[in-house]
Amino acid sequence: MHIVSLAGGIGGARFLRGLRETSPDARITVIGNTGDDITLFGLRVCPDLDTVMYTLGGGINEEQGWGRTKETHVVKEELAAYGVEPQWFGLGDRDFATHIVRSQMLEAGFPLSQITRALCARWQPGVELLPMSDDRCETHVVITDERGRRAVHFQEWWVRLRASVPAESIALVGVDGAKPAPGVLEAIEEADVVILPPSNPVVSIGTILQVPGIREALLPKTVVGVSPIIGGAPVRGMADACLTAIGVETTAQAVLDLYGAELIDGWLVAPEDSGVRLDGVRVVARPILMRDPETGADVAADIARGALDLALELAR
Amino acid sequence: MHIVSLAGGIGGARFLRGLRETSPDARITVIGNTGDDITLFGLRVCPDLDTVMYTLGGGINEEQGWGRTKETHVVKEELAAYGVEPQWFGLGDRDFATHIVRSQMLEAGFPLSQITRALCARWQPGVELLPMSDDRCETHVVITDERGRRAVHFQEWWVRLRASVPAESIALVGVDGAKPAPGVLEAIEEADVVILPPSNPVVSIGTILQVPGIREALLPKTVVGVSPIIGGAPVRGMADACLTAIGVETTAQAVLDLYGAELIDGWLVAPEDSGVRLDGVRVVARPILMRDPETGADVAADIARGALDLALELAR
Repeated sequence: MHIVSLAGGIGGARFLRGLRETSPDARITVIGNTGDDITLFGLRVCPDLDTVMYTLGGGINEEQGWGRTKETHVVKEELAAYGVEPQWFGLGDRDFATHIVRSQMLEAGFPLSQITRALCARWQPGVELLPMSDDRCETHVVITDERGRRAVHFQEWWVRLRASVPAESIALVGVDGAKPAPGVLEAIEEADVVILPPSNPVVSIGTILQVPGIREALLPKTVVGVSPIIGGAPVRGMADACLTAIGVETTAQAVLDLYGAELIDGWLVAPEDSGVRLDGVRVVARPILMRDPETGADVAADIARGALDLALELAR
Repeated sequence: MHIVSLAGGIGGARFLRGLRETSPDARITVIGNTGDDITLFGLRVCPDLDTVMYTLGGGINEEQGWGRTKETHVVKEELAAYGVEPQWFGLGDRDFATHIVRSQMLEAGFPLSQITRALCARWQPGVELLPMSDDRCETHVVITDERGRRAVHFQEWWVRLRASVPAESIALVGVDGAKPAPGVLEAIEEADVVILPPSNPVVSIGTILQVPGIREALLPKTVVGVSPIIGGAPVRGMADACLTAIGVETTAQAVLDLYGAELIDGWLVAPEDSGVRLDGVRVVARPILMRDPETGADVAADIARGALDLALELAR
C-alpha cells in the first residue's frame, strides 16, 4: 500500500508518526510544506520539513513539538552578542547544524529534494519526505503595525508577532513559477490513498495545494482529511488567524468547504462537529484530538487509523 | 605614536597583547594574515584574524591559544552525525557564530575589512585590525601522501596532517591579483615604526609580505622584528616545517636573511643567537620567550617593549 500525505509542522508530524505506527508495512510519501522556509543568518531553514524529519526520526523536542531534544543555544546567544538580527527566531545549536548542512548543499547546487533525502539518511524517518517544490516559494503576510502597512515573512508574523496583528492578506510569493519537486506528482499518481493531517489549511496544506499541478493531481485520488478545527477552535496553533485572513470561518464545515468536494472524499470531524455536511463527501464524526484529553497519551495512531480505514473504504 | 604590526595567529596575538599593554596610548594597526582562511561547511573561517580579535578582546581560550573560552562543540558533533567532512578542524559553537556572521556579511557583499571592523565592534581589541587583503588568497601546500602528490589547503596540512608530511612547496593562491585591504598602505605610510612579532615567517608574515604593494610600502619604514626561532627551534608551532619547504634553515640568522636587510632595521634574538649578523641590521640579543621559562608568566609586554624601544631608537 502506498499512502501519500501532505503535511505542515508539529500537528502534521505527530499525525504522520501515528500513521507510520498504524501502517508499518505501507510505503508513505510525505509532501512537506516549504512555504514557511526562511533564510536566517544566511542559512536556509525549513521548519516544517525539519519538524517532520526530527519527529519521525526520534530527534524532536517532544514538549515544544519543534526543534531538537537536549538542545543548547550557544550560537544564538553569540549571534545576539554580535547584535545580529533577528533574535526572535529560536534556533538551537543542534538545529543550526542541519541548516548549515542544507545551506552548504544548496550553495553547491543541490536541489532541496536531494538535500532533504541526504538529511533523512541520518534520521531514517521511515517515510519518504519530499518538499512540495525545489523552487523557492515563501509565504508573506500583509500587516499593519507601528511601522505601517507592509508585507512580512510568515515567520515574522507567526513567531515574532504571534499572529497578534491581523493578517490582511497572505500570499505565497514565487509559487506561480514553481514546479512540484521530483517525485511529488509520481507519488500522488501511484498512491492508493491520500491523507490530509490536521495541519493548517491555509499556510500548510493550502500552500502545498497552490503549487501548480499538485491539486490537479490529487483530484482523481481518494483523499481523506482530518479536520484541524474542533468545535470552532483550532486543534493547535493559530489556524484561526490564517482562516480569518482569507475570509473563512474557523469551523470544521468551513475548512471542508474551503478544500471542496472536488478534492475531498472523506472528512473526519470531532463528535461535536457531527453536523458537518458536504455533497459528495463522507463525513465521519469520531474523536480526533491527537492527545487523549484525560490521560494525555498520544493517540495519533488511532486517529490516523480512522482516516486510513475511511480512505481505504472509499477507495474500494 | 602610530605602530603598525603584521601578525599571524597565536604567537602574534600574544605579542600584540603585550604591545598594547606596553604602549596603551599608541595607535596600533594590525595587518592580519588571511592566507590561512578556509571555507568550511560553507562558512568563511579566518583563523588568524579571529585569534587576534579574541586574544585582544578577552575571548580567547588561553590554554590552547586559539578558539573561544568556555567553548562547547554541539554543532561540530551534529555535523559529524550527518557525516559531513571535514571533521578534523576544531570549530566550537561560539566560534561558529563568528563565522556565520562573517559569511552572511560576505554573501551580502561586504568586504572582509568591513566585516572585520563590524566583528571588532563587539570585541574592542584596542587595535585597528585589518586583513592583509579583501581579496581571497589561500595558502596551498604540495604534499605526497597515500593519495599521491597533490596540493592541499594549508589547514589540511597544518591541522589534519600536523605538518607530518613534508611540504614540497607552498603557494599563496590568488595573491597575484590581490590588493592590500583599504587602510593597509595608508597605515604603513603613516606609521612611526613597524614591528614584526615572532609569527611564522613563511605562512604568516611571509604571506602578508607577498600581497603586492605591502613589502614595497614597508621598505622605507623602520622595521623591527622578533625572531620566531630560538637556538634552532621555533618558539612555538611548526615553523621549521614551513622554512624547510622553502629551503631556509630553522635559525634566527636564516630568517633574518630571508626577510633581508632591505626590509629589516632591527632584529631581536635570544641570547643564544647573539652571533646573528646582517649588514645594515641592528641585532639585539635579549630574552624573547613570551612566557618566562621559570615562572610561566606572560612577559610578552616586556618583549614588545624591547622591540618598540629598538624601533624608536632606530627611527630617530
